[in-house]
Amino acid sequence: MLTKTIAAISTALQDGAISIIRLSGPDALAIADSVFSGDVLHQPANTIRYGTILKDGEPLDEVLLSVFRAPHSYSGMDMVEINAHGGVLITRRILQLLLSKGAVLAEPGEFTRQAFLTGRIDLAQAEAVNDMITATSDAGARIAVQGIRGSVRKLLEPLIDDILNIIAQIEVNIDYPEYEDVEELTSETLLPEITRWIDRIGRILERAAFGQQVKKGIDTVILGRPNAGKSSLLNALLEEDKAIVTDIPGTTRDVVEGRVILDGIQLNLLDTAGIRETEDTVEKLGVERSRKAAREADLVILVRDPLATDADLDLPELVEGKQLIEVWNKSDVAPREGLSISAKTGEIEPLLQEIRARFEQGLDTKEALLSSERQIGLLRRAQASMMNAQAVLQDGGLPDMAEIDIQEAHSCLKEILGEVHREDLLDALFSRFCLGK
Amino acid sequence: MLTKTIAAISTALQDGAISIIRLSGPDALAIADSVFSGDVLHQPANTIRYGTILKDGEPLDEVLLSVFRAPHSYSGMDMVEINAHGGVLITRRILQLLLSKGAVLAEPGEFTRQAFLTGRIDLAQAEAVNDMITATSDAGARIAVQGIRGSVRKLLEPLIDDILNIIAQIEVNIDYPEYEDVEELTSETLLPEITRWIDRIGRILERAAFGQQVKKGIDTVILGRPNAGKSSLLNALLEEDKAIVTDIPGTTRDVVEGRVILDGIQLNLLDTAGIRETEDTVEKLGVERSRKAAREADLVILVRDPLATDADLDLPELVEGKQLIEVWNKSDVAPREGLSISAKTGEIEPLLQEIRARFEQGLDTKEALLSSERQIGLLRRAQASMMNAQAVLQDGGLPDMAEIDIQEAHSCLKEILGEVHREDLLDALFSRFCLGK
Repeated sequence: MLTKTIAAISTALQDGAISIIRLSGPDALAIADSVFSGDVLHQPANTIRYGTILKDGEPLDEVLLSVFRAPHSYSGMDMVEINAHGGVLITRRILQLLLSKGAVLAEPGEFTRQAFLTGRIDLAQAEAVNDMITATSDAGARIAVQGIRGSVRKLLEPLIDDILNIIAQIEVNIDYPEYEDVEELTSETLLPEITRWIDRIGRILERAAFGQQVKKGIDTVILGRPNAGKSSLLNALLEEDKAIVTDIPGTTRDVVEGRVILDGIQLNLLDTAGIRETEDTVEKLGVERSRKAAREADLVILVRDPLATDADLDLPELVEGKQLIEVWNKSDVAPREGLSISAKTGEIEPLLQEIRARFEQGLDTKEALLSSERQIGLLRRAQASMMNAQAVLQDGGLPDMAEIDIQEAHSCLKEILGEVHREDLLDALFSRFCLGK
Repeated sequence: MLTKTIAAISTALQDGAISIIRLSGPDALAIADSVFSGDVLHQPANTIRYGTILKDGEPLDEVLLSVFRAPHSYSGMDMVEINAHGGVLITRRILQLLLSKGAVLAEPGEFTRQAFLTGRIDLAQAEAVNDMITATSDAGARIAVQGIRGSVRKLLEPLIDDILNIIAQIEVNIDYPEYEDVEELTSETLLPEITRWIDRIGRILERAAFGQQVKKGIDTVILGRPNAGKSSLLNALLEEDKAIVTDIPGTTRDVVEGRVILDGIQLNLLDTAGIRETEDTVEKLGVERSRKAAREADLVILVRDPLATDADLDLPELVEGKQLIEVWNKSDVAPREGLSISAKTGEIEPLLQEIRARFEQGLDTKEALLSSERQIGLLRRAQASMMNAQAVLQDGGLPDMAEIDIQEAHSCLKEILGEVHREDLLDALFSRFCLGK
């Protein structure tokens, strides 16, 4: 698999000041050498040289050419990067020239895939690279850079090692029951160990939920009775941060009405119809959509109206399992105890502080965070397997009867780092990357 | 002017695999050092180092950082290039960090302007850099790369030196008429010299017309009577080269119906209404547009119909001063002597050969070509001044009476290379560049 040399344009394909064409693989230096005015084969690693790309002896462009040598490169293989003059046409021509010299057009993410296959990075780091490129908030970028630096391995490796030790102990007990100097592992000593692992995984999962929310933004629904001031609050939130509303194109989904970044945390604000009992068919549909949005949200902001005389909404089924913040609106005319704001005058700081407080642990980058669905899915499977093992032991089973579940959990954790992997899953993972990465 | 350190994002601002943030100026290394995990100040020139961009001690991204030292850099000043992870958000954050450390946001083309002001390149080379980025055909890119390599200076410098020698001789004659050992310059020896210069400039201007056509594409109008087969020919031309029709967005102008690249030469094909006398108001407008298009074209392809019985068009006023190619169409049913084609069957090779023959000298890159309007305008002014000097001498004037015109011509030629320049003209020139170039 790692015998081919791949090439791709690694900068966005629009006219820009500089474009980069990348080569990676065993023949990267030789292929570059065959089209460059200078001696690429003997160019020292990690140096840049000015020169000319030649096609049939004619100059194609004046470029800067960088050389990286295995294993000290992005991909872990020999690499060459050509910085060309940024035009779409000339950039394509240089790529075509490299392909004509034996390079193979890279698939999306294939440079990163090489980095994974050569062992330079693990699979969680590879995922973090893509998260960094697509990050839409500072908090998301912070989690990504920690991921690139190997935070997931640091988080999981002690757990993986602990489990492996126990597996080894079980196996020794099975294989050499007669050895007296091998400490015997009983269900009584194993059970508390497994319970601790389940807790450890549970805590990681809990924080991972924050990580995911930070990465994609916190889906936030503003609920309340008609006229409570929901739309004013939406406007106040958007107005407040208008200057740093992200302007990354193509990421706004239909249902998102606005996106604000609050101290680096992204809130995806959804507008909803006021919820009340109604016989009007159209309004009923609107209310149903509000309830649906609330059910799918991470955070529900319930806006209460101090001027309303009839009983307020009771929404237990809507807010179960998610963050709920209740605020009293209209503090300019009817201030109340508790979180009291005025969307109309823009006095919403108490609400903003509450949001920050709820989500700031997601921003604490000192402790590592998982944020990928793939990783979280595997972690859940690891937890489930450990719970099976726990049940076996609680039912009086012996350690070796629980071993298969413990091994399954161990395997799931290793799969997060890519230490065991399936080709088709790798294909799916890297296909989400940019070309040239 | 060159005391500030500028920064910009030099790759197209879209999510891509790699983005580049560039720093150039006296504090480039110090500013980069203040945000990078490694020691930038002592990093050797032309080397790349892996490390972390830090903001307030927190990692922002893992990057590759390249160092270039004056005068051996793109701008001729100390430079740093940071290759980041390609996301729009993180790329902007790094730029913002550099700006907060004292860098100034670069204006479009300002890195290239620094290169000009530090004397690393002349103004014609600077223009060629932009031509390279915006090139839409191989031939255009070829002229641009020659320009980057200094072809305009090579072409003009001998002429500039010759003229300077004559000016020096005139001045010596004026200042030291008593010196017997100074060769006296008479109108009789100067006049043939000037005539030769006018011819030399004339030849450069002639070839520059090709250069311009190659750069922007050759505006080509297909003319002919209704039913001669104009639209079939347009389709045949487009079909022939459909595979390499350029797909660069935003460059097609309304009137251009199709663009084909023929051996690297770009033809901008304009569809026209058949030209004939008519009383129909709408058709009249169409015919008028055809005539106008023909007047503005570089190349007119006149399609003649061998089956037509009445006299063909006479178009002397339309084709004056431009390339005209007459072809007989419908060779499949009525072959004729001369250029005979069948647009219907796609047998148009004789026409393609003729087009290549007419424009191939524009592709001959062994001899240098000017292609910028600014340069051509200055060259025309130089020629006009030389013609004034010629007239002065022919009217019996002495060499010192022609000196002012000769000096004006000399100054125009030096302005092409930017050896004399005006700030406002530089502003206009560099404002057409990309940000980050």
